[in-house]
Amino acid sequence: MSPMNTPTTEQKQSERIIELHRGGKIEVSLKTPLKTREDLSMAYTPGVARACMAVHADPARSFELTIRHNTVAVVSDGSAVLGLGNIGPTAALPVMEGKCMLFKEFAGVDAFPICLDTQDVDEIVRTCVYLAPTFGGINLEDISSPRCVDVEQQLIELVDIPVFHDDQHGTAVVVLAALQNALKIVQKQLADIRVAISGAGAAGAAIAKLLQSVGCRSIVLCDRAGIIDRKRNLDDNKVKRWIAENTNPENISGSLAEAVRGADVFIGVSGPDLLGVEDVKQMAADPVVFALANPDPEIDPQAALTSARVVATGRSDYPNQINNVLCFPGLFRGMLDVRARRVTESMKLAAARAIAEVVSDDELSPEYFIPSVFDARVSTGVARAVAQAALDAGVERNH
Amino acid sequence: MSPMNTPTTEQKQSERIIELHRGGKIEVSLKTPLKTREDLSMAYTPGVARACMAVHADPARSFELTIRHNTVAVVSDGSAVLGLGNIGPTAALPVMEGKCMLFKEFAGVDAFPICLDTQDVDEIVRTCVYLAPTFGGINLEDISSPRCVDVEQQLIELVDIPVFHDDQHGTAVVVLAALQNALKIVQKQLADIRVAISGAGAAGAAIAKLLQSVGCRSIVLCDRAGIIDRKRNLDDNKVKRWIAENTNPENISGSLAEAVRGADVFIGVSGPDLLGVEDVKQMAADPVVFALANPDPEIDPQAALTSARVVATGRSDYPNQINNVLCFPGLFRGMLDVRARRVTESMKLAAARAIAEVVSDDELSPEYFIPSVFDARVSTGVARAVAQAALDAGVERNH
Repeated sequence: MSPMNTPTTEQKQSERIIELHRGGKIEVSLKTPLKTREDLSMAYTPGVARACMAVHADPARSFELTIRHNTVAVVSDGSAVLGLGNIGPTAALPVMEGKCMLFKEFAGVDAFPICLDTQDVDEIVRTCVYLAPTFGGINLEDISSPRCVDVEQQLIELVDIPVFHDDQHGTAVVVLAALQNALKIVQKQLADIRVAISGAGAAGAAIAKLLQSVGCRSIVLCDRAGIIDRKRNLDDNKVKRWIAENTNPENISGSLAEAVRGADVFIGVSGPDLLGVEDVKQMAADPVVFALANPDPEIDPQAALTSARVVATGRSDYPNQINNVLCFPGLFRGMLDVRARRVTESMKLAAARAIAEVVSDDELSPEYFIPSVFDARVSTGVARAVAQAALDAGVERNH
Repeated sequence: MSPMNTPTTEQKQSERIIELHRGGKIEVSLKTPLKTREDLSMAYTPGVARACMAVHADPARSFELTIRHNTVAVVSDGSAVLGLGNIGPTAALPVMEGKCMLFKEFAGVDAFPICLDTQDVDEIVRTCVYLAPTFGGINLEDISSPRCVDVEQQLIELVDIPVFHDDQHGTAVVVLAALQNALKIVQKQLADIRVAISGAGAAGAAIAKLLQSVGCRSIVLCDRAGIIDRKRNLDDNKVKRWIAENTNPENISGSLAEAVRGADVFIGVSGPDLLGVEDVKQMAADPVVFALANPDPEIDPQAALTSARVVATGRSDYPNQINNVLCFPGLFRGMLDVRARRVTESMKLAAARAIAEVVSDDELSPEYFIPSVFDARVSTGVARAVAQAALDAGVERNH
């Protein structure tokens, strides 16, 4: 083979990934054997009729005698997949399969991908309502903003199982966990800090909302056009309208650089290379920088560290990875364990606290303030905390 | 414990069945490990993007790089579950889980239950269209007649994956297989026999249609009111209308007993105790009786054998069990293997032939003319025959 035809490392890696995906990444397995006539007569006709009639007599027993007990739908319309954009439901399936793997590996939750061939909000909602009898929860995924907010809000009203849009709330929970620990390092309080968020989509807004719920008052969000203030015409985007009405208390205007100037914390859920080292230098003392755009962060983490005190990214190859997998498996585990009918703010806060607490005060350092995604204490801690929060709050339960 | 409190065998068996169902009967498993950061970066972000973009560039690769490759949706609205009637989607779930077990155990097909919270034909169809990107096939199950016919016909027009209503066509295929072998025993030809079918729902009509397609001309169907003839007012039931227009060539009228008189073959897909031994005595020489109502057949099989030459039931505790599991796992296996876009008549006929051929002419006897559901040659034979039928006919394929 001539040197010209030798595959590059890049090509080899690409081929490995394609090979790994061949035939799909998950499968359906039997939990009970089906080898004899007796097995067949118990798991299928005629015996199965007893389980059917038990559920028919008391539908809540579906959470005891069927897969609902432990099964979550991972629903996407493929409209905002990773950083790839609107690639559609078929092309989104590998991501949703991966998500289902994470559910099982990290929390023993059976999750099944549902990639829908519609991007109409009402149709997505209606379909999920029809699907609900099979599932104990619905994880919405990679649905573009602001449609994702409508899908989630409408669905929550219509089904009696928890509905969770991970791109919004999972991100917000993990950011809050990371921020709680980062603020310990820089010895600041949530109530006192100024936060600049780059990215005014559903994730940015959810982060702002969750930070506000724990007492953070000064939050400014920016989109590509700059700071969201009350002068902007945002009639066509309800997420940005919410941001304009509920953040930026001093109603400042201008570019991202203006938002960052004097801020204690930068949180990027936007795109690559939007933050300069010069911007970080204009932040308040001991800057905290979460540059979460993936795969290319808002600022190169090494460069950021020349001026920032604490840096986190969404990448696994740098310290302090802010990754939703720290939240969603344990969150659903906890909700399924107590058969919660909905997700509450107190559950999200409990999840954030549980994630943060995995790193003890003694261990806390700028190099390590977020636990590894492979730290088994994370999902068990989150599950326990979420279940307890549900019980404490007397959350409606399916039983 | 006093004798009064001692659980009966019946109660013990019921409790065993409930225990077997606790937590559900199927689970989702990983096909590839997720233990290291590298695993994670290949199966999930950022590596998964390569699989997504490969599918985005060529959607047919979803049949290569995702679970579509091997995954079937088992869809029900819970409107006609086993013999239990309209128990709804939640109570139907144990049956659909059992069906998914059969798919996996008998043919390695990953199947997932989808129990829909709607019994509106258009809504079921629409939902299945939206679900199609995730699946390589759709098995419709336990949807009441005549709605099931509309659901299937509409859906076939709208999706490019095979749609198969097992209660209609699975039953018909296995009945045809059994009949082909039974006729060898009594040395009669399909073209010459008279067939009486008890049950004028979707299954009865599908059996009639498939028998006609192989040259069977004289078929009469009965419902509770008796023989379906051209005098009946059937405007509200399109299945029965089809039956009236396409069967009963001599347009005879009367009760089931009239239909059975002089018939060579009785096929019951109706309810218990509808056929008397006296009726069998009125049949032509060497009566063939398939009493398939479950759990209680149209005639007691022992009693039937006093007058019939050949008897089959739907029960596993008598010889010659006519069970759909002889067909659907292998049928879908074959269709998935060649990525067929639809089910054709030739595939169904090939499946019936493959099932029948498992019992060799030397082995054929009134006690054994249908293979056991546990005979591994059945699903492999059906899969091979169906795949070949698809290739021979140049069936549209997803590739």
